[in-house]
Amino acid sequence: MTTAAARTPAGRTLAHPDRAEIRLEAVLHALSDPMRLAVVREMATAQGADSPGLSCSHFDLPVTKSTSTHHFRVLRESGVIEQVYRGTTKLNGLRRDDLDALFPGLLDSVLDAATRQADRLDGHAG
Amino acid sequence: MTTAAARTPAGRTLAHPDRAEIRLEAVLHALSDPMRLAVVREMATAQGADSPGLSCSHFDLPVTKSTSTHHFRVLRESGVIEQVYRGTTKLNGLRRDDLDALFPGLLDSVLDAATRQADRLDGHAG
Repeated sequence: MTTAAARTPAGRTLAHPDRAEIRLEAVLHALSDPMRLAVVREMATAQGADSPGLSCSHFDLPVTKSTSTHHFRVLRESGVIEQVYRGTTKLNGLRRDDLDALFPGLLDSVLDAATRQADRLDGHAG
Repeated sequence: MTTAAARTPAGRTLAHPDRAEIRLEAVLHALSDPMRLAVVREMATAQGADSPGLSCSHFDLPVTKSTSTHHFRVLRESGVIEQVYRGTTKLNGLRRDDLDALFPGLLDSVLDAATRQADRLDGHAG
Protein backbone atom coordinates (compact mmCIF):
# COMPACT_ATOMS: atom_id res chain seq x y z
CA MET A 1 0.00 0.00 0.00
CA THR A 2 0.97 3.59 -0.37
CA THR A 3 0.10 6.46 1.89
CA ALA A 4 -1.92 7.90 -0.97
CA ALA A 5 -3.99 4.74 -1.12
CA ALA A 6 -5.36 5.45 2.33
CA ARG A 7 -6.61 8.90 1.29
CA THR A 8 -10.02 9.79 0.02
CA PRO A 9 -10.57 12.71 -2.30
CA ALA A 10 -11.92 14.50 0.76
CA GLY A 11 -8.64 13.80 2.51
CA ARG A 12 -10.03 11.59 5.24
CA THR A 13 -7.36 9.10 6.17
CA LEU A 14 -6.85 6.25 8.55
CA ALA A 15 -3.51 5.69 10.25
CA HIS A 16 -1.52 2.71 9.02
CA PRO A 17 1.95 1.63 10.03
CA ASP A 18 4.48 1.75 7.23
CA ARG A 19 5.86 -1.64 6.29
CA ALA A 20 9.01 -1.02 8.30
CA GLU A 21 6.94 -0.18 11.37
CA ILE A 22 5.01 -3.46 11.40
CA ARG A 23 5.96 -5.63 14.36
CA LEU A 24 5.61 -9.38 14.60
CA GLU A 25 4.28 -9.21 18.15
CA ALA A 26 1.49 -6.84 17.12
CA VAL A 27 0.60 -9.03 14.14
CA LEU A 28 0.41 -12.13 16.34
CA HIS A 29 -1.68 -10.25 18.87
CA ALA A 30 -4.06 -9.07 16.15
CA LEU A 31 -4.45 -12.65 14.92
CA SER A 32 -4.87 -14.10 18.42
CA ASP A 33 -8.50 -13.06 18.74
CA PRO A 34 -11.01 -15.57 17.32
CA MET A 35 -13.13 -12.90 15.70
CA ARG A 36 -10.21 -11.05 14.14
CA LEU A 37 -8.77 -14.34 12.93
CA ALA A 38 -12.12 -15.18 11.33
CA VAL A 39 -12.16 -11.81 9.58
CA VAL A 40 -8.65 -12.35 8.24
CA ARG A 41 -9.51 -15.85 7.04
CA GLU A 42 -12.54 -14.57 5.19
CA MET A 43 -10.54 -11.72 3.71
CA ALA A 44 -7.85 -14.13 2.52
CA THR A 45 -10.48 -16.31 0.88
CA ALA A 46 -12.52 -13.53 -0.65
CA GLN A 47 -9.64 -11.54 -1.96
CA GLY A 48 -7.95 -12.13 -5.26
CA ALA A 49 -5.89 -8.99 -5.12
CA ASP A 50 -4.41 -6.82 -2.42
CA SER A 51 -6.78 -3.94 -2.96
CA PRO A 52 -9.26 -3.37 -0.16
CA GLY A 53 -12.62 -4.53 -1.40
CA LEU A 54 -14.72 -5.68 1.51
CA SER A 55 -16.73 -3.40 3.74
CA CYS A 56 -16.77 -4.02 7.49
CA SER A 57 -20.48 -4.84 7.29
CA HIS A 58 -19.69 -7.65 4.83
CA PHE A 59 -18.36 -9.68 7.72
CA ASP A 60 -21.51 -9.57 9.80
CA LEU A 61 -19.78 -10.12 13.13
CA PRO A 62 -22.01 -11.12 16.07
CA VAL A 63 -20.89 -8.12 18.11
CA THR A 64 -21.83 -4.50 18.54
CA LYS A 65 -20.73 -1.95 15.98
CA SER A 66 -18.20 -0.47 18.37
CA THR A 67 -16.64 -3.87 19.11
CA SER A 68 -16.47 -4.59 15.41
CA THR A 69 -14.81 -1.22 14.80
CA HIS A 70 -12.32 -2.01 17.57
CA HIS A 71 -11.37 -5.33 15.97
CA PHE A 72 -10.84 -3.75 12.56
CA ARG A 73 -8.77 -1.01 14.14
CA VAL A 74 -6.51 -3.54 15.88
CA LEU A 75 -6.03 -5.30 12.55
CA ARG A 76 -5.25 -2.02 10.80
CA GLU A 77 -2.93 -0.61 13.45
CA SER A 78 -0.94 -3.84 13.60
CA GLY A 79 -0.42 -3.74 9.84
CA VAL A 80 -2.48 -6.84 9.04
CA ILE A 81 -5.12 -5.01 7.02
CA GLU A 82 -5.52 -1.82 5.04
CA GLN A 83 -8.66 0.26 5.44
CA VAL A 84 -9.69 2.97 3.01
CA TYR A 85 -12.73 5.17 3.02
CA ARG A 86 -15.15 5.06 0.14
CA GLY A 87 -17.65 7.70 1.14
CA THR A 88 -18.70 6.74 4.65
CA THR A 89 -17.83 3.08 4.18
CA LYS A 90 -14.50 1.58 5.11
CA LEU A 91 -13.19 -1.00 2.68
CA ASN A 92 -10.78 -3.60 3.97
CA GLY A 93 -8.00 -5.66 2.48
CA LEU A 94 -5.17 -7.85 3.72
CA ARG A 95 -1.66 -6.36 3.52
CA ARG A 96 -0.38 -9.63 2.17
CA ASP A 97 2.52 -8.12 0.21
CA ASP A 98 3.82 -6.33 3.28
CA LEU A 99 3.39 -9.31 5.58
CA ASP A 100 4.93 -11.75 3.11
CA ALA A 101 7.88 -9.44 2.56
CA LEU A 102 8.54 -9.01 6.28
CA PHE A 103 7.63 -12.49 7.50
CA PRO A 104 7.69 -14.97 4.62
CA GLY A 105 5.30 -17.85 5.16
CA LEU A 106 3.87 -16.54 8.41
CA LEU A 107 0.43 -15.48 7.20
CA ASP A 108 -0.03 -18.66 5.19
CA SER A 109 0.99 -20.85 8.11
CA VAL A 110 -1.47 -19.07 10.40
CA LEU A 111 -4.25 -19.38 7.81
CA ASP A 112 -3.42 -23.04 7.29
CA ALA A 113 -3.38 -23.64 11.05
CA ALA A 114 -6.75 -21.93 11.38
CA THR A 115 -8.24 -24.11 8.65
CA ARG A 116 -6.84 -27.25 10.25
CA GLN A 117 -8.23 -26.27 13.62
CA ALA A 118 -11.66 -25.45 12.19
CA ASP A 119 -11.76 -28.80 10.41
CA ARG A 120 -10.61 -30.61 13.53
CA LEU A 121 -13.13 -28.96 15.84
CA ASP A 122 -15.91 -29.54 13.31
CA GLY A 123 -14.96 -33.20 13.20
CA HIS A 124 -14.02 -33.10 9.54
CA ALA A 125 -10.45 -34.17 10.20
CA GLY A 126 -8.52 -36.30 12.69
CA MET B 1 4.48 -35.09 26.48
CA THR B 2 2.57 -37.50 28.70
CA THR B 3 0.60 -36.71 31.80
CA ALA B 4 3.14 -38.71 33.76
CA ALA B 5 5.91 -36.47 32.46
CA ALA B 6 4.43 -33.54 34.33
CA ARG B 7 4.48 -35.37 37.65
CA THR B 8 7.19 -35.34 40.23
CA PRO B 9 7.76 -38.28 42.56
CA ALA B 10 6.03 -36.16 45.18
CA GLY B 11 3.05 -35.85 42.87
CA ARG B 12 3.24 -32.10 42.37
CA THR B 13 1.89 -31.32 38.94
CA LEU B 14 1.28 -28.33 36.73
CA ALA B 15 -1.77 -28.13 34.50
CA HIS B 16 -1.15 -28.55 30.80
CA PRO B 17 -3.66 -28.69 27.98
CA ASP B 18 -3.76 -32.01 26.16
CA ARG B 19 -2.70 -31.77 22.55
CA ALA B 20 -6.33 -31.77 21.41
CA GLU B 21 -7.11 -28.90 23.75
CA ILE B 22 -4.45 -26.57 22.35
CA ARG B 23 -5.99 -23.65 20.47
CA LEU B 24 -4.33 -21.59 17.77
CA GLU B 25 -5.64 -18.33 19.19
CA ALA B 26 -4.09 -19.07 22.60
CA VAL B 27 -0.78 -20.04 21.00
CA LEU B 28 -0.69 -16.82 18.98
CA HIS B 29 -1.58 -14.81 22.08
CA ALA B 30 1.19 -16.50 24.05
CA LEU B 31 3.69 -15.67 21.31
CA SER B 32 2.47 -12.08 20.89
CA ASP B 33 4.33 -10.79 23.95
CA PRO B 34 7.93 -9.71 23.29
CA MET B 35 9.24 -11.34 26.45
CA ARG B 36 7.42 -14.60 25.92
CA LEU B 37 8.54 -14.66 22.30
CA ALA B 38 12.12 -14.13 23.43
CA VAL B 39 11.81 -17.03 25.87
CA VAL B 40 10.46 -19.31 23.15
CA ARG B 41 13.22 -18.28 20.74
CA GLU B 42 15.86 -19.07 23.32
CA MET B 43 14.20 -22.38 24.15
CA ALA B 44 14.09 -23.32 20.46
CA THR B 45 17.78 -22.55 20.10
CA ALA B 46 18.93 -24.17 23.31
CA GLN B 47 16.91 -27.28 22.98
CA GLY B 48 18.01 -30.33 21.06
CA ALA B 49 15.19 -32.51 22.27
CA ASP B 50 11.65 -32.01 23.46
CA SER B 51 12.41 -32.76 27.08
CA PRO B 52 12.20 -29.77 29.41
CA GLY B 53 15.70 -28.83 30.36
CA LEU B 54 15.87 -25.13 31.11
CA SER B 55 14.93 -23.58 34.43
CA CYS B 56 12.96 -20.33 34.49
CA SER B 57 15.95 -18.57 36.06
CA HIS B 58 18.05 -19.56 33.03
CA PHE B 59 16.25 -16.91 31.02
CA ASP B 60 17.10 -13.99 33.29
CA LEU B 61 14.15 -11.83 32.28
CA PRO B 62 14.30 -8.14 33.24
CA VAL B 63 11.07 -8.39 35.20
CA THR B 64 9.95 -9.32 38.69
CA LYS B 65 9.69 -12.96 39.67
CA SER B 66 5.90 -12.82 39.64
CA THR B 67 5.81 -11.33 36.15
CA SER B 68 8.22 -13.97 34.95
CA THR B 69 6.06 -16.68 36.53
CA HIS B 70 3.04 -15.19 34.79
CA HIS B 71 4.72 -15.31 31.38
CA PHE B 72 5.75 -18.93 31.83
CA ARG B 73 2.24 -19.81 32.97
CA VAL B 74 0.72 -18.23 29.85
CA LEU B 75 3.14 -20.22 27.72
CA ARG B 76 2.29 -23.43 29.58
CA GLU B 77 -1.47 -22.95 29.65
CA SER B 78 -1.56 -22.18 25.93
CA GLY B 79 0.30 -25.41 25.18
CA VAL B 80 3.46 -23.76 23.88
CA ILE B 81 5.73 -25.09 26.62
CA GLU B 82 5.86 -27.93 29.08
CA GLN B 83 6.88 -27.28 32.67
CA VAL B 84 7.92 -30.00 35.08
CA TYR B 85 9.08 -29.75 38.66
CA ARG B 86 12.51 -30.96 39.62
CA GLY B 87 12.52 -30.35 43.32
CA THR B 88 11.51 -26.71 43.71
CA THR B 89 12.73 -25.76 40.24
CA LYS B 90 10.51 -25.73 37.18
CA LEU B 91 12.16 -26.98 34.03
CA ASN B 92 10.82 -25.78 30.71
CA GLY B 93 10.69 -27.15 27.21
CA LEU B 94 8.91 -26.37 23.97
CA ARG B 95 6.04 -28.65 23.00
CA ARG B 96 7.32 -28.75 19.46
CA ASP B 97 5.91 -32.18 18.63
CA ASP B 98 2.43 -31.13 19.68
CA LEU B 99 2.58 -27.78 17.91
CA ASP B 100 4.04 -29.25 14.72
CA ALA B 101 1.40 -31.97 14.68
CA LEU B 102 -1.46 -29.52 15.12
CA PHE B 103 -0.14 -26.58 13.12
CA PRO B 104 2.60 -27.73 10.72
CA GLY B 105 5.09 -25.01 10.00
CA LEU B 106 3.57 -22.45 12.33
CA LEU B 107 6.19 -22.46 15.06
CA ASP B 108 9.04 -22.40 12.56
CA SER B 109 7.50 -19.53 10.63
CA VAL B 110 7.06 -17.51 13.83
CA LEU B 111 10.64 -18.25 14.91
CA ASP B 112 11.91 -17.32 11.45
CA ALA B 113 9.86 -14.12 11.49
CA ALA B 114 11.26 -13.24 14.91
CA THR B 115 14.82 -13.77 13.72
CA ARG B 116 14.22 -11.66 10.62
CA GLN B 117 12.71 -8.89 12.69
CA ALA B 118 15.56 -8.96 15.22
CA ASP B 119 18.10 -8.78 12.38
CA ARG B 120 16.18 -5.98 10.70
CA LEU B 121 15.83 -3.89 13.83
CA ASP B 122 19.47 -4.44 14.72
CA GLY B 123 20.43 -3.25 11.25
CA HIS B 124 21.96 -6.55 10.23
CA ALA B 125 19.58 -7.03 7.33
CA GLY B 126 17.70 -4.89 4.86
